[in-house]
Amino acid sequence: MAVRARQSGIRDPESALRLFRKLLGDGQVHADSATLDLYAADETPRRCVPRGVLFPHDHDQVRDIVAIARATRTSLVPRGAGSGNVGGATPVPNSYVVSFECMNQIRDLDPADRVVVAQPGVVTADLDAAARAYGLFYPPNPGSAAFCRIGGNIATNAAGPRSLKYGVTRDYVLSLKAVDGRGRSLTTGSRATKSVVGYDLTRLLVGSEGTLALVTEAAIRLLPAPAETAVLQASYSSAEDACAAVGRVMRAQTVPCALEFLDERATALVREAGVNLPAAAQATLIVEADGSAEDIAVQLPLYQRALQGHGMLELAQARTPAAVATLWATRSALSGAVKRRAPLKINEDVAVPVSQLGALVSQIEKLAVTHQLEVVSFGHAGNGNLHVNVLIDPAEPGQKKRAALYLRDLFQAVLSLGGTLSGEHGIGLAKRRFVPLEVGEDTLALMWAIKQQLDPMRLLNPGKALPAVVRRRPRITLQ
Amino acid sequence: MAVRARQSGIRDPESALRLFRKLLGDGQVHADSATLDLYAADETPRRCVPRGVLFPHDHDQVRDIVAIARATRTSLVPRGAGSGNVGGATPVPNSYVVSFECMNQIRDLDPADRVVVAQPGVVTADLDAAARAYGLFYPPNPGSAAFCRIGGNIATNAAGPRSLKYGVTRDYVLSLKAVDGRGRSLTTGSRATKSVVGYDLTRLLVGSEGTLALVTEAAIRLLPAPAETAVLQASYSSAEDACAAVGRVMRAQTVPCALEFLDERATALVREAGVNLPAAAQATLIVEADGSAEDIAVQLPLYQRALQGHGMLELAQARTPAAVATLWATRSALSGAVKRRAPLKINEDVAVPVSQLGALVSQIEKLAVTHQLEVVSFGHAGNGNLHVNVLIDPAEPGQKKRAALYLRDLFQAVLSLGGTLSGEHGIGLAKRRFVPLEVGEDTLALMWAIKQQLDPMRLLNPGKALPAVVRRRPRITLQ
Repeated sequence: MAVRARQSGIRDPESALRLFRKLLGDGQVHADSATLDLYAADETPRRCVPRGVLFPHDHDQVRDIVAIARATRTSLVPRGAGSGNVGGATPVPNSYVVSFECMNQIRDLDPADRVVVAQPGVVTADLDAAARAYGLFYPPNPGSAAFCRIGGNIATNAAGPRSLKYGVTRDYVLSLKAVDGRGRSLTTGSRATKSVVGYDLTRLLVGSEGTLALVTEAAIRLLPAPAETAVLQASYSSAEDACAAVGRVMRAQTVPCALEFLDERATALVREAGVNLPAAAQATLIVEADGSAEDIAVQLPLYQRALQGHGMLELAQARTPAAVATLWATRSALSGAVKRRAPLKINEDVAVPVSQLGALVSQIEKLAVTHQLEVVSFGHAGNGNLHVNVLIDPAEPGQKKRAALYLRDLFQAVLSLGGTLSGEHGIGLAKRRFVPLEVGEDTLALMWAIKQQLDPMRLLNPGKALPAVVRRRPRITLQ
Repeated sequence: MAVRARQSGIRDPESALRLFRKLLGDGQVHADSATLDLYAADETPRRCVPRGVLFPHDHDQVRDIVAIARATRTSLVPRGAGSGNVGGATPVPNSYVVSFECMNQIRDLDPADRVVVAQPGVVTADLDAAARAYGLFYPPNPGSAAFCRIGGNIATNAAGPRSLKYGVTRDYVLSLKAVDGRGRSLTTGSRATKSVVGYDLTRLLVGSEGTLALVTEAAIRLLPAPAETAVLQASYSSAEDACAAVGRVMRAQTVPCALEFLDERATALVREAGVNLPAAAQATLIVEADGSAEDIAVQLPLYQRALQGHGMLELAQARTPAAVATLWATRSALSGAVKRRAPLKINEDVAVPVSQLGALVSQIEKLAVTHQLEVVSFGHAGNGNLHVNVLIDPAEPGQKKRAALYLRDLFQAVLSLGGTLSGEHGIGLAKRRFVPLEVGEDTLALMWAIKQQLDPMRLLNPGKALPAVVRRRPRITLQ
């Protein structure tokens, strides 16, 4: 159905609701308060109740939704599983959430080409499971893989522990079908594994947080699943010693699949969860190696040697699939365990060149003391990418203010170490005001100019990813 | 020196020459006929003598060159080694070539971060050699690595045999410094190995063939050099049998470093060059495995088993570095050997999903018979990416016309197989008219809109990469 909505030029969310119902039918348009409440936020605390939630089934419906949004100047907020950490799926006033939950079909999985064509609503773990049925796998594994959706992964260029060896979402997307804010149907890239025809629109859309176009289909490259996996776990008497070991592992002659760091508090949480770690451990490293059994036998001694050194307390190894799974389950549960420790968790996601990891960890801890806050950090050490969790109780006077000052100081420290505000979570609402600290005025102006070409009416996920105004000094308040 | 050139709005290449000389001095501005002649073409036959050749030394000089070009409406044609295959560095009338040959410094090579910061004029093989001094390597290895320059690699998103396992130039560029057509200095990406802040301008510039910005510096990721390499060489009694073996190798549980195909004529050329191959061989495959000796010992039997099958005549193995080098030297020399066979070689570079490789090879050969042309094809079979070389003598009546018809039919066949016009050479001048066959009208309009944002005066490498007008049916003439 091609909707010919009147180009009124007036913001008219009520007409939009009527037109959306006409287009999709009542079953795919929900505006009851229970649903609106469910879709009012993602994993961040900020909430905004949308006008309605749309559940398109295919590309043409998405195209027609954009046509209606244009005619009624209605904001659209695309959403995968709502598991993002930066408010990327948080509605804005009078907006409609476009949920891709019903577009969850794997269209084609071709083991000869090692390509899967998926709708954006496919759960990341389901995509991986479908690939594994053919001896293949989908390498990026964000912590939320069990419930997040590939469309959200594409929007945020999601990563995870395995990205150290295998790269990020961007490295696996061959081709996209999408609808931009002008209502144009775009097809980017090629199903061939190499293509250099015109500009790389695929990677312009990957990581653009739904602000340029709504992705309706993706062709994704798969790899043969590694035959085996082994995990090493090393504990240290100080974070400094653990970071020195990270440096040694990253100078080894092979790249591990994953190299994770847990600070003192994260180590304690893992210990409380039942993992056997020395009482004196102030930091933990986890190294995963994958490949053939023979190759793992070559890799493990390299990593073992690298892990050993000043301050190492204990080195354990998980070789059986069950032992490996147990260890990773604990690591994966960290995010939730940290969250339960305080009414509000601010989850930052900074990254630095790996040689600066020790300096970053030291800054994280020093600033926690300065601003009197409880901070738990852990993450993808091999990429210099740490999740810095600031635990606060908003009811307690001054905590929010101190947290805001902490973040400002943290970001400045990260940038002075040659790092970046976000390694994998993205900018969303939460960090947009800080973007000008990292991205220069001219470069940011170019990003806005590109936004203008794809979405001149600013209907697609407004207020996300790019800062509203180029400002050298962000205001220091907490969202 | 910040040049304040008059914004005349009139195309004025003579004033440009004066201003360029004032900016750079005579030593960095050449306009003698011998130099102009040298820079009038790249590896394609089309020639156009520029007004001058500029040799900037640093970012600020490039920025000032763009300022002068804007003030005098002068076209700039960036150039690395001029080894491109699609006329990407061919001057246009009244243009100035910006040669990056003097910007050939490796600024920083940090083995702890596995990052090298290089100017665009660094020769690709020199970059790799610098990395190898630290036990690292730069994975993409285009056939021209010995003389091409990393800036040209970035402009074309260059690849090569190892891209099967290791990916392309795009996958290694972390951050770029560049000057766009508005004269803005841009800094994209981050030296951290993961960053998702704003839009991915790094990958928008990689592969844009110098039409959006002039790259002045790149931070490039390196990998630990594999300990060992082994090469298998298999010959077949038909191209069909060889393509079936490619399919089997690509279903093995590991990905080889390279998987190359040589058709009957390429096989004959290699045999003439002294490689021992059965007289009955109608096609050859080369498989390279790399990694630890133990891992290679696991990989080789998998590839050997996959290579064996209907029509295989002989399977040979090179294990010593010298034997491996000899085999690759022959493969690398193929391009030149093919070129010497005819006055004019049209080098196409199509790619299809690897499951369609057999169909592609069959089409290449069928069309050669139909159009009565000599065609030699070889290339990166694992990526479904073949270099299709049409050998013609322009003096012979009808050959150019037949070649043009051949290309039209070839491109249509490739696209109907789900493929792409170019796997790694790019579009340049040579293929721009065919782009609308692959890229839809709306998607192409978006590419032009992006070009407009970065280079509204169309001064940077005009006439390259994007077709002048969106046309469904390209005119069939040969450039």
